[in-house]
Amino acid sequence: MRVLSGIQPTGRFHWGNYFGAIKQYIDLQDNDQAFYFIADLHALTTVRDAEQLRQNTIDAALDLLALGLDPKQATLFRQSDVPEVTSLTWILMTITQMSLLEKCHAYKDKKANGIAADAGLFTYPVLMAADILLYDSDLVPVGQDQVQHIEVTRDLAQRFNMLFGETLTLPNSRTLDTSAKVPGTDGRKMSKSYGNVIEIFETAKQQRKKVMSIKTDSAALEDPKDPDNCAVFALYQLFADETQQAELAARYRAGGMGYGEAKQAVHDAALEYFGEARERREQLAADLDTVHDILAEGARKAREKGKEVLERVQSACGLGTSHLSK
Amino acid sequence: MRVLSGIQPTGRFHWGNYFGAIKQYIDLQDNDQAFYFIADLHALTTVRDAEQLRQNTIDAALDLLALGLDPKQATLFRQSDVPEVTSLTWILMTITQMSLLEKCHAYKDKKANGIAADAGLFTYPVLMAADILLYDSDLVPVGQDQVQHIEVTRDLAQRFNMLFGETLTLPNSRTLDTSAKVPGTDGRKMSKSYGNVIEIFETAKQQRKKVMSIKTDSAALEDPKDPDNCAVFALYQLFADETQQAELAARYRAGGMGYGEAKQAVHDAALEYFGEARERREQLAADLDTVHDILAEGARKAREKGKEVLERVQSACGLGTSHLSK
Repeated sequence: MRVLSGIQPTGRFHWGNYFGAIKQYIDLQDNDQAFYFIADLHALTTVRDAEQLRQNTIDAALDLLALGLDPKQATLFRQSDVPEVTSLTWILMTITQMSLLEKCHAYKDKKANGIAADAGLFTYPVLMAADILLYDSDLVPVGQDQVQHIEVTRDLAQRFNMLFGETLTLPNSRTLDTSAKVPGTDGRKMSKSYGNVIEIFETAKQQRKKVMSIKTDSAALEDPKDPDNCAVFALYQLFADETQQAELAARYRAGGMGYGEAKQAVHDAALEYFGEARERREQLAADLDTVHDILAEGARKAREKGKEVLERVQSACGLGTSHLSK
Repeated sequence: MRVLSGIQPTGRFHWGNYFGAIKQYIDLQDNDQAFYFIADLHALTTVRDAEQLRQNTIDAALDLLALGLDPKQATLFRQSDVPEVTSLTWILMTITQMSLLEKCHAYKDKKANGIAADAGLFTYPVLMAADILLYDSDLVPVGQDQVQHIEVTRDLAQRFNMLFGETLTLPNSRTLDTSAKVPGTDGRKMSKSYGNVIEIFETAKQQRKKVMSIKTDSAALEDPKDPDNCAVFALYQLFADETQQAELAARYRAGGMGYGEAKQAVHDAALEYFGEARERREQLAADLDTVHDILAEGARKAREKGKEVLERVQSACGLGTSHLSK
């Protein structure tokens, strides 16, 4: 079974990204075959600064590798290193009904808000379908907001198969577990668009500053506090084991502990939790050649599979067999 | 100066295609550099039969070579053999405003007629822009109906250059000379959509049958006839020299000549006009390996240029340098 996940390099990853998605992606790398790509072609729809995009891309690779993505188990590659994906995108584009794209909410939302959209945003479900179909992916773990795009992918694969004969593999989606609550510094869901994020690899100093700024209620030091209604405690739960959680919860309820102390506990626990990853990241960042080699090897493996599928598709619809590698 | 022309392999070429476009394309091959491609990726938006598309593509190559396109002077290639073109298409897609595409008439017309359009038709001006920009094309000879797409291409190149710095060459269009009148068998403009065409390489028997079926007025044999209002004479003008034209015009005006005789003259003149091409086509069709070699060599040359431009573009917008050929 082949699992595929893509992640957009639109900025540094934060705790919300990690517990909501990255951790779950990485946990799936034990599968037969796991393909992970850094979606720089998608990021182009929003990042309009070359240096920024290049930096984001390499940062994404560093972050993922540091967080435990193991290139011996999984294939990690940069989307733009596999040109077959845009070849397939065009082919799919010719069989994509406009109405299918008009229904997709990323575009609909933007349009409803009166924002001028680019064709990249409008057609990005087609690129996403190509991302998935190019590797005969069986399973695509996605957030709830992406389930629609997997449906589009299945629709396109079915339409292609109907027009040109059985060629493309229909993927299944698996919705990511979103039960972990990851509040941001203002108490709302941690999200870049709220400006309330704590990045995974902030410096310790920056991290402490952000953790200390988390919004809490105005209970006095001596008051008993409710751990179940506290962003600080919710974050602590992500990093601490059950015993530690129970201890802190008891101190909340007993009163006499200020939020500052709980925040310090979150800070310490997060440093501990990501300690090894932090070290690995530093090592990798000092040895970018290795990272480039990993990406090059990943691209080689991805292209091997991608070429096979693209040739199947080209042959099915009457394009010359690919001369890509000749 | 680099001249670029593309032609869709949607069926066999007819007299209207030849005098309205192909002849003029071929006349431009003396330029420094002339790139001609068979637009099979565009044809995918309408041809949904693999065998048909493959056959159309090879027929287009045979027709063009037979009609005088000289692979020593010009670069002839199949669009889908240059994967760089779809890579560039996606990049351009991310900077294409929806409003630009909504204005394009191929899509607008179809929508106005209530026909469900595919995203391929909607976004095809972006692929066309990539076709042109990928080769730093300076001049693109086009029919009047395509001038809008060259404007779109210039818009996109300008927008890219504005966002990411001077990268893409702005092309100029040259409108094809459409003064030659090429009526079809029903007297209307020769066009596949009217079902009134005479193909360049019909068998002599088929051609004669079609020429004999050309609609004329009901003037009797002995009546004087008006060459300037006669589809048969208009076609004769395409194939005959001025002396021959003057002779036939005199016989029209004198009366005593039936249209059958004029039609026979058209048939003979067309056979004569395309005689050499017909022979060349037969030779080439018996030696398809040579045609494949020509296309492969054309693709090699086109990719050489295309890779150079794509790498420039990728570097300007922050994608990894291309690993295509590594």
